[in-house]
Amino acid sequence: MKIGVLGTGMVGNALATKLASLGHDVMMGARSEGNEKATGWAADNSAEAGDFAQAAMFGEIIIFATLGSALIEAANLAGPENLDGKVVIDVTNPLDMSKGFPPTLIAEMANTTSAGEELQKALPGAHVVKALNTMNCEIMVDPSRVPGTHDVFYCGNDQAAKDKVAALLNSFGWQDPIDLGPLDAARGTEGMMPFWLRMYGTLGNAEFNYKIVKA
Amino acid sequence: MKIGVLGTGMVGNALATKLASLGHDVMMGARSEGNEKATGWAADNSAEAGDFAQAAMFGEIIIFATLGSALIEAANLAGPENLDGKVVIDVTNPLDMSKGFPPTLIAEMANTTSAGEELQKALPGAHVVKALNTMNCEIMVDPSRVPGTHDVFYCGNDQAAKDKVAALLNSFGWQDPIDLGPLDAARGTEGMMPFWLRMYGTLGNAEFNYKIVKA
Repeated sequence: MKIGVLGTGMVGNALATKLASLGHDVMMGARSEGNEKATGWAADNSAEAGDFAQAAMFGEIIIFATLGSALIEAANLAGPENLDGKVVIDVTNPLDMSKGFPPTLIAEMANTTSAGEELQKALPGAHVVKALNTMNCEIMVDPSRVPGTHDVFYCGNDQAAKDKVAALLNSFGWQDPIDLGPLDAARGTEGMMPFWLRMYGTLGNAEFNYKIVKA
Repeated sequence: MKIGVLGTGMVGNALATKLASLGHDVMMGARSEGNEKATGWAADNSAEAGDFAQAAMFGEIIIFATLGSALIEAANLAGPENLDGKVVIDVTNPLDMSKGFPPTLIAEMANTTSAGEELQKALPGAHVVKALNTMNCEIMVDPSRVPGTHDVFYCGNDQAAKDKVAALLNSFGWQDPIDLGPLDAARGTEGMMPFWLRMYGTLGNAEFNYKIVKA
């Protein structure tokens, strides 16, 4: 499948590399064409690089893996018209990094809304699915790093889009991704980040994940 | 031990009943002396009932189990001077129930602060420990309702107070409560509630809990 990954940081890298290794045609998109992180990654992975709009046009599925604070600008640069009718996976968290560690959530993207919902508003013709944003990026693409069963969550307003994302999660090694319902459940998964940051501080590493244990 | 439980709802009831069954001397506190829920519970459990201030004076440990929206008023009615030097356990969640289901967080008690921190501000001489607020109240007092291992979290600024709370959690059946650090970690555990509400919606029941799975 042709997949555009927007974002050249650790998360974009991990996802793009995994997708390329699974045989997908991947283009990594950066703010600027010729970005060396994107072109370097593409050279290393026999893949492609472009700007946000090129990666948005290229993909059948588009993954937003930017900073949360840059998400809406990235959507505007990608071009809403380039994403009409496409599956958009939002893996971002709306963290306000401006005031030290641990960060808070960006108030305008939390509680009564979410990064996922704001992205959907910016891309009205796209089918936004929130997924994978509750864990370290290395675990996102290799759940076996953490032993035993543990969980990944997704939500969105379009069932066909969610089914495609669930299949992609399966291909990463997630056996039973949990469908949390409509996209506003992103308020829930993004809202777990302040807890995640404390757990990270307590354990001293990011090699953990949530498991929902049921009676 | 003498324990005051402030709040006559499901959570206060579950905690007070468990504590009485463990042999503690418990007073359930209500907004008004003579509240029938409190006096009825006391009669059923050979325990005591009073108003918030009486329960605060009575206890060596005080548990706040009111609605989040009523928490600070309850603290003021309890009387900050009655709680000086005491261990205060805050099990509340700052939910705004005024706009339908699922509720959002009360903005003034979330993200850059928390119910736990606001309670500490209202009770400057008390040692506030946030605990147990990430699950259904029946699981709080009987973790074996959910099979296998799963987790409870606590945080606070006073280590001696936290140690007492950890011992109380042990007595409820929690083997390894997780210390998340200072009280501002309550932003994390309270922030999990919007996720919890979606998980509740997905599963159709509240009989689940979180487990942190580590590599």
